[in-house]
Amino acid sequence: MHDPKTLFEALFAPRRIALVGASADVTKTTSRPQRFLRKHGFSGEILPINPSRREILGEVAHASLDAVPGDIDHAYILLNGRGAVDALAACGRRGVTVASILAGGFADAGAAGASMQDDLVRIVRDTGIRLVGPNSIGTVSTDPPVALTANAAFAVEHLRKGRWAVVSQSGSLIGALLSRADARGIGFSRLISVGNEVDLAVGEIADLLVDDPASDAILLFMETLRDGERLARAARRAHAAGKPMIAYKLGRSEIGQELAKSHTGAIAGSDATFDAFCHRHGIARVSMFESLVDVPALLVDRPKASERGASGRRARGPQGIGRRVAVATTTGGGAAMVVDNMAVAGLDIVGPPQALVDWLKPLGIAAGEGRLVDLTLAGAKPEIVAGTIERLLADDGNDAVIFVVGSSAQFNPELAVEPLLAFARSAKPFAVSLTPSAEKSVALLTAAGVPVFRHPESCAEAMAVCLLRPTPQPVPELPEPTAAAREALADGRRAGFDERRAAALFAALGVPMAKAMAVPDARRVAAAVDEIGGPVALKILSADIAHKTEAGGVALGLPDGQHAAVAARDMEKRVRAHSPGARLEGFLVQKMERGLAEVILGFRRDPLVGPTVTVGLGGVLAELYKDAATRLAPVDEDEARQMIEAVKGLAILRGYRNLPRGDVSALARAVAAFSTLAHQAFAEVSDAEINPLLVKRDGEGVVAVDGLVVLRAS
Amino acid sequence: MHDPKTLFEALFAPRRIALVGASADVTKTTSRPQRFLRKHGFSGEILPINPSRREILGEVAHASLDAVPGDIDHAYILLNGRGAVDALAACGRRGVTVASILAGGFADAGAAGASMQDDLVRIVRDTGIRLVGPNSIGTVSTDPPVALTANAAFAVEHLRKGRWAVVSQSGSLIGALLSRADARGIGFSRLISVGNEVDLAVGEIADLLVDDPASDAILLFMETLRDGERLARAARRAHAAGKPMIAYKLGRSEIGQELAKSHTGAIAGSDATFDAFCHRHGIARVSMFESLVDVPALLVDRPKASERGASGRRARGPQGIGRRVAVATTTGGGAAMVVDNMAVAGLDIVGPPQALVDWLKPLGIAAGEGRLVDLTLAGAKPEIVAGTIERLLADDGNDAVIFVVGSSAQFNPELAVEPLLAFARSAKPFAVSLTPSAEKSVALLTAAGVPVFRHPESCAEAMAVCLLRPTPQPVPELPEPTAAAREALADGRRAGFDERRAAALFAALGVPMAKAMAVPDARRVAAAVDEIGGPVALKILSADIAHKTEAGGVALGLPDGQHAAVAARDMEKRVRAHSPGARLEGFLVQKMERGLAEVILGFRRDPLVGPTVTVGLGGVLAELYKDAATRLAPVDEDEARQMIEAVKGLAILRGYRNLPRGDVSALARAVAAFSTLAHQAFAEVSDAEINPLLVKRDGEGVVAVDGLVVLRAS
Repeated sequence: MHDPKTLFEALFAPRRIALVGASADVTKTTSRPQRFLRKHGFSGEILPINPSRREILGEVAHASLDAVPGDIDHAYILLNGRGAVDALAACGRRGVTVASILAGGFADAGAAGASMQDDLVRIVRDTGIRLVGPNSIGTVSTDPPVALTANAAFAVEHLRKGRWAVVSQSGSLIGALLSRADARGIGFSRLISVGNEVDLAVGEIADLLVDDPASDAILLFMETLRDGERLARAARRAHAAGKPMIAYKLGRSEIGQELAKSHTGAIAGSDATFDAFCHRHGIARVSMFESLVDVPALLVDRPKASERGASGRRARGPQGIGRRVAVATTTGGGAAMVVDNMAVAGLDIVGPPQALVDWLKPLGIAAGEGRLVDLTLAGAKPEIVAGTIERLLADDGNDAVIFVVGSSAQFNPELAVEPLLAFARSAKPFAVSLTPSAEKSVALLTAAGVPVFRHPESCAEAMAVCLLRPTPQPVPELPEPTAAAREALADGRRAGFDERRAAALFAALGVPMAKAMAVPDARRVAAAVDEIGGPVALKILSADIAHKTEAGGVALGLPDGQHAAVAARDMEKRVRAHSPGARLEGFLVQKMERGLAEVILGFRRDPLVGPTVTVGLGGVLAELYKDAATRLAPVDEDEARQMIEAVKGLAILRGYRNLPRGDVSALARAVAAFSTLAHQAFAEVSDAEINPLLVKRDGEGVVAVDGLVVLRAS
Repeated sequence: MHDPKTLFEALFAPRRIALVGASADVTKTTSRPQRFLRKHGFSGEILPINPSRREILGEVAHASLDAVPGDIDHAYILLNGRGAVDALAACGRRGVTVASILAGGFADAGAAGASMQDDLVRIVRDTGIRLVGPNSIGTVSTDPPVALTANAAFAVEHLRKGRWAVVSQSGSLIGALLSRADARGIGFSRLISVGNEVDLAVGEIADLLVDDPASDAILLFMETLRDGERLARAARRAHAAGKPMIAYKLGRSEIGQELAKSHTGAIAGSDATFDAFCHRHGIARVSMFESLVDVPALLVDRPKASERGASGRRARGPQGIGRRVAVATTTGGGAAMVVDNMAVAGLDIVGPPQALVDWLKPLGIAAGEGRLVDLTLAGAKPEIVAGTIERLLADDGNDAVIFVVGSSAQFNPELAVEPLLAFARSAKPFAVSLTPSAEKSVALLTAAGVPVFRHPESCAEAMAVCLLRPTPQPVPELPEPTAAAREALADGRRAGFDERRAAALFAALGVPMAKAMAVPDARRVAAAVDEIGGPVALKILSADIAHKTEAGGVALGLPDGQHAAVAARDMEKRVRAHSPGARLEGFLVQKMERGLAEVILGFRRDPLVGPTVTVGLGGVLAELYKDAATRLAPVDEDEARQMIEAVKGLAILRGYRNLPRGDVSALARAVAAFSTLAHQAFAEVSDAEINPLLVKRDGEGVVAVDGLVVLRAS
């Protein structure tokens, strides 16, 4: 294995690049990497490999990789199918540090392709070469310039430098991001298309970029998640290094998930689990594509030069202090759009401090009356704009400031835009939103480092991401499973996880379960009721009966032993009549419980993000409204409490409409206990559910009534 | 009153314009109208009015309006406060057809301003002059050019012509729309800022524009709604004329509603009621600001010249045929973004027809495997792109087609963009979304009349608006109220609307109410139960007791007359102990009812849109999830059924999870009957509610258990 520095340089600062299958025909895609490298000033050596030519586009061509003397840092393989596999093998034999493969047609294209992809995996494993792709449109640096890519967007005249790095699972989108950012004066440090991620995946590359002094922010365009653990580590290190990590991910809809799958041959996973992943590890997720370009300016802080550390800049907080935004403007209608969108996104809009109200009064502006500081009446004047922003930024009553500029931004930037440039280094988030199309003002503000937005929707999304984005959460330590829990698991594995054994496991984890006893026959039922206390529920025990209610095998609300004994005898008759062949193992006598609310707990080992836990309200309605909170498992009580808070319908436990308060603490403890199923000792548990968990009045605890455990098919 | 044609011409094609308070100082806002008129080629006469100058910016100035000889079509009053009022009076005296007032500071600025606004109203009424504003930044036509505005955006070099008209309650936003549209090659026919709408309001102006041969679409930027009836009429006429009406309205959030109020002195109304208004009258509402510019191209149809009627173009469907969109692309990732957003917006994505699959196969493209036709592998080639679109447009399996173009759009429009130009007149909605920033392609497509989008989000919103937008719904005829209903209203007015009298009114309207009898004392309770049939609920009757349950005045589930009689005596004692001074009027004996679901019906006379009816699921959860449907009242059974369908939680009546089906027909009948409260005969009813209305099994009807009626404070 190469050390990270060697790997990083082979990726982003290679000196000798081989282009395997380079073409001299400029109409061909395979001619692009060579042309783009030279066009954008690559100063190293380009080694075109093509058996049928001695020269390509002015460079000496080599017949084969083996014919090239000396070390090769990076080989970009431009051949298809089997040719690409063979070229990778040759690269491996020859000790090339990194190879990238342009062609698709591997795991993204059915069984034959998948088998060729297996060959790639084998070569990587056997030779130690590192691989980008297949299906990678290339890897680009801007400083020093290395445009090693076949993406047509790099035909651009000038490759703009910048301090944000892009890692993308879609190749075409690095071109889209390049052109969109360039159009508004923004450049990137690195852009890399990771393709099918046979070897190098988003997480490892992001991890390398955390240590890249040229990159202040890491932007991800994702269709799936292949190396979650690595990305989690990178996100945490990025946060510690003060570099925001911002992700756009496809798959908010089911068809989007399906597309991501068919597009890259990847599993898409559910949207909620990716959100849970982002929440746990501190990744900011955006929902508008252009936000990937728009948002970083607001998240990357720009301390004065004297304060800069080695990495240049540091990421701005998540402020942790609140969601209060103050808004000033020269266009009431334009600002109202930004405010409306921010409020929908969950931010609070706050009015001006008294100091500003007093300052504006002699100028004829009554700023105290609305929550917006509308300077329209005073006209757009530099000193009024500057004085307003200064006073808003100095106010402890807000957490961020937005200035919305109207028509003057288009023709008279000197009036209300130039005075904003002085606030580029504000300690507090400060953003500018332009209501008209005003490219000159966009360029001015961007060059000065003032976050500027062209759409009210993206401004609102950016501010919401800035103030509400998650910080990495500590991963709770998992207690070693108790002997009882291990035994319950072993028991379930051996005999099958019916509801009794599931209950035994949950109880061993620390989830309070309803009192229950199994008795072998109807005669012992009354005694069991006496011990448990009525009223009870009675259920037939039989591994042969899947639907007990339909078989007449369930009776509820039996007040005492006498009633229960009668019910048991009746039940036995009914069940025998319904399922003559079934082997009956006796009865389960369970205490009837009541609560203020029925909660569902779910546990699932997600193929992408690993163990997750879900809390939702029970019942048909909550299911219809999809009202649940999902987080990575395990969670501690604090995070469990946040989850409970995030379930809208659980307001019924929080004193809503004067309803009695529920025991939220006990619920949080139960959620945390249940989530310890994430422990490796329970790796064979793929899914588990408790439904319902009854939440009683505050101080009276919770109790689970029923549940199930599903083991992984092995 | 002027006839519509005279009014229209004075607004949009005036020949003699007076500028009252015009300034020769080009740094002043009040100099702009004169400069912009001339700059953009106004060929009529400009009459600056200014007592202290004989010439302004090269035109002869007049000392006063009275000093101007001949007729004046339009006077733009650029004075403030009292000066503006006096000028309007002078215009009125002089017989000016239309005046506009630039200044704010009227109803938008407290009591003193409101009183001045009353003066404006009086002048309009007394003289018959028509008024735009106050607080109007101007009125603009592009053909013939009349840039009668003080909006700085009109400093633009060239005023682009177009066929869409803009009516805006925000003055600054007509400038923002102008610059945004111009940046992408789109112009407008008319733009008007209506300000405080003292006289001419959005509805009347929109109505004029329906008959404007230069305008194919009517775009509204709204903060409130002042002349709903007029706008409704305009929307219906616009639909009939084939001109889509598209609205962006502030106030999706509460703070947004508050702002709209403080900004223009207007009542904002709730967002749901404005949606109801749009739904009833066929107005398409957009949520992204830029959509106002983006969407019309997709909604306005472009028949071949030979098919054109007098109005030039006709509005495209609402298709009414479905929500199925086919998507082809040269960028998998870019298309996936569009698809993901469309699916979230409620559209279905459908795959290619077999004819296309077969045609693409020999080209090496396996189009049948996903729902997306991804041409990436074949590269962007004109004949493949054209052949693909042709086959998708010919397919009956979709209702609309989108093509998403990748990098080639930026540098090689000839590859995948130029072949799209041929489809500008497709019978079916066809839109193009560009993934990179590609201004040249945007311009090409726009000029050819192909709807083109720069953001995946706006493309998805536009297609959703195109396929799902409402058509005007017939306004159901209101039956004349029955004698019983009039009597129930009179009775409630006289004696106060307690629950008995509310029930009587609802019953008279045709809503089935639970059987109930009022008895004067406890001795008569048993007989009442015998007549009604047990079990019953018993409630104390007393106008003096607001909270009956707390006073011990409610008992539920009494099985028979004997139990009820005992309960009544106990109740009387309890209530007397709890509320010693209260005058007791007896008991209400009501049949206990059960249903599959509890529904709430609400009726409200909204200050902006008039009578509305709301259907929601009862209970705390539905309230938390804000799960309700609101429409303008009255509704007929069909529309009531659509409302029921729109309430998510009512899935429990639609066979969800094999639950028994509820009597949705009876529910729809009850909603329609309840909504007849909209009749003018009930004008004094400001609010009414039925809660709960129990829905029984299919065929078993519905029954209302409780309700209230609130009369307008008079």
